[in-house]
Amino acid sequence: MRVKTIEWKNGAMRIVDQTKLPGKLVYKECRTPGEAWDAIKRLEVRGAPAIGIAGAMGVLLGIRGSRARTFDRFFAELRKVADYLGSSRPTAVNLFWALRRMTETAARHRSDEIPALKRILEREALAILDEDNDICRRIGAHGAALLANGTRILTHCNAGGLATAEYGTALAVLFAAHEAGKRISVFADETRPLLQGARLTAWELMRAGIDATLICDSMAARLMFERRVDIVITGADRIAANGDTANKIGTYGLARLAEAHGIPFYIAAPLSTVDLELRTGKGIPIEQRDPDEVRTIGGTRIAPARVKVYNPAFDVTPARFIAGIITETGVVGPPYRAHLRAAFRKAGVKPKRRR
Amino acid sequence: MRVKTIEWKNGAMRIVDQTKLPGKLVYKECRTPGEAWDAIKRLEVRGAPAIGIAGAMGVLLGIRGSRARTFDRFFAELRKVADYLGSSRPTAVNLFWALRRMTETAARHRSDEIPALKRILEREALAILDEDNDICRRIGAHGAALLANGTRILTHCNAGGLATAEYGTALAVLFAAHEAGKRISVFADETRPLLQGARLTAWELMRAGIDATLICDSMAARLMFERRVDIVITGADRIAANGDTANKIGTYGLARLAEAHGIPFYIAAPLSTVDLELRTGKGIPIEQRDPDEVRTIGGTRIAPARVKVYNPAFDVTPARFIAGIITETGVVGPPYRAHLRAAFRKAGVKPKRRR
Repeated sequence: MRVKTIEWKNGAMRIVDQTKLPGKLVYKECRTPGEAWDAIKRLEVRGAPAIGIAGAMGVLLGIRGSRARTFDRFFAELRKVADYLGSSRPTAVNLFWALRRMTETAARHRSDEIPALKRILEREALAILDEDNDICRRIGAHGAALLANGTRILTHCNAGGLATAEYGTALAVLFAAHEAGKRISVFADETRPLLQGARLTAWELMRAGIDATLICDSMAARLMFERRVDIVITGADRIAANGDTANKIGTYGLARLAEAHGIPFYIAAPLSTVDLELRTGKGIPIEQRDPDEVRTIGGTRIAPARVKVYNPAFDVTPARFIAGIITETGVVGPPYRAHLRAAFRKAGVKPKRRR
Repeated sequence: MRVKTIEWKNGAMRIVDQTKLPGKLVYKECRTPGEAWDAIKRLEVRGAPAIGIAGAMGVLLGIRGSRARTFDRFFAELRKVADYLGSSRPTAVNLFWALRRMTETAARHRSDEIPALKRILEREALAILDEDNDICRRIGAHGAALLANGTRILTHCNAGGLATAEYGTALAVLFAAHEAGKRISVFADETRPLLQGARLTAWELMRAGIDATLICDSMAARLMFERRVDIVITGADRIAANGDTANKIGTYGLARLAEAHGIPFYIAAPLSTVDLELRTGKGIPIEQRDPDEVRTIGGTRIAPARVKVYNPAFDVTPARFIAGIITETGVVGPPYRAHLRAAFRKAGVKPKRRR
């Protein structure tokens, strides 16, 4: 059974506490903006879409008890709680996008009564969640058409429901195929250094009843050599206008190995991941992360304390190694520059503004 | 400074206790066969050549106090201690080879006096160690010729001094280049699941004063993409007559990625690793290891307890992806079937018999 990563239930935000996974499935109810802030800060809720939803719901928790009688007073309270929530993860683009969407909604309805405005804002927060579910389900449906009975999929990192409200992106494809009755099997890369594949993807797949096998990242090539992988599907962090795709470190190597073995390599991501202003992947900065992520695992030191470390968060897969990008409008194939623009027109979506 | 993994000192076997690395450099003296047995069993000493040497020295520890006055009595004691030592790691080919070499040496000198025989056996054990050093140094010298000032090398797992008496195989090449005054820099794959690269290779390189950078296995492709790797060199566990090479899981993927980026991929290994009776790599069985090696790290669970795991100990790199095999007789290039046979003739070496 799939899990609802985040939902609005009985006037509270209910989340899966991901810091307890895969050991325990613990739900947590947040009833105040402070509890929502903590949940985001402590990575109990993670993944761009899920964080955005948590931010919007955090705003609801902050304003529902408001005794303001004028819009100006109410709006000041709203902005204060939004600013506060924004301080939980200052680099999360989706968080600011969702918080701005809440404040802009309020501003558009400044002539409404406060109780009505509160209901409008609740509908807006739930709309953000519904839109996420809708986009993920459409990605799932389009991607599932690529999979047949018996298809063996390799995936990397966690592009799963746990990063979104429920369905995920790359994993939405697997969930949709499974729900359609296709017998699929999945190899999940553990995804060093932070092990999202081992901790989250393996757990989500097992819970959904999908045949899942965990491997170390270095084992993927051997599986391909043994002809045990039919298709590779990963998520994306950022896609340039020409289709070059930034995703978790390790993705590029998988794409090259897939090419060397004649295996198609797909990306699954919403159009909101595509940055049409970025001409190619060369413009994507590669963040270097804390060396101790590599030197230690779960607090245990596994390497000399002062060894130099190379620890890029992402890599960029050039578009020529990508067979297709599975979006909510369908599977986009090369040439990506033209086809991604067409997908945006078809969806009637504007790229998300960044703060 | 390089470390002596195993040596014979003041009538005792002195080893580096590798279970304490990279945290602490602890030397341990073994003065009885029981202590030698424990050291092998507990992986305080590891790596095929080093285990062989430890076995031979363990025999010395067992027979030096013998009060036997007849050869038959002495030989019975010798065989008993050899059998006992062989039970420490029943799958270690080199251990049995070294133990048999000790018993056969004794048998050849059955007409000698017992005290003389003890000295002969001590010389034989030290000869095994000296031969290992000699072979490793020759591998180092031949391989170092491939490296120039400024060469950036990528290596996988630990083909270092810690697996042999002192110099290693792939690392012997790096030590030799460094000692010749070449400024080289090395990227060491951490090598999941057992992290020999993070724990041992990074430590050995730093101690030797060689510029070393630790990476997760999944990061190698990105480094190649950034043109920061000039050559890949790994060790080998077993090489078929046609050059197909079994080595630590992850080696095959590196070889394919190296090919995709136009980077030469080399193996460094003694001729004793080459099995001329094995026509191709297809005949090499791939051992599947304990799933918990992947599900846990240093005792910490990182994945669902019951998730299925694929955990091959090795992979096989087809000879066509190998630019050369660095042996004690020189760098052997394709066609390997002819050139490996020629290397054996040149060395006057017979393949090691297996038990």
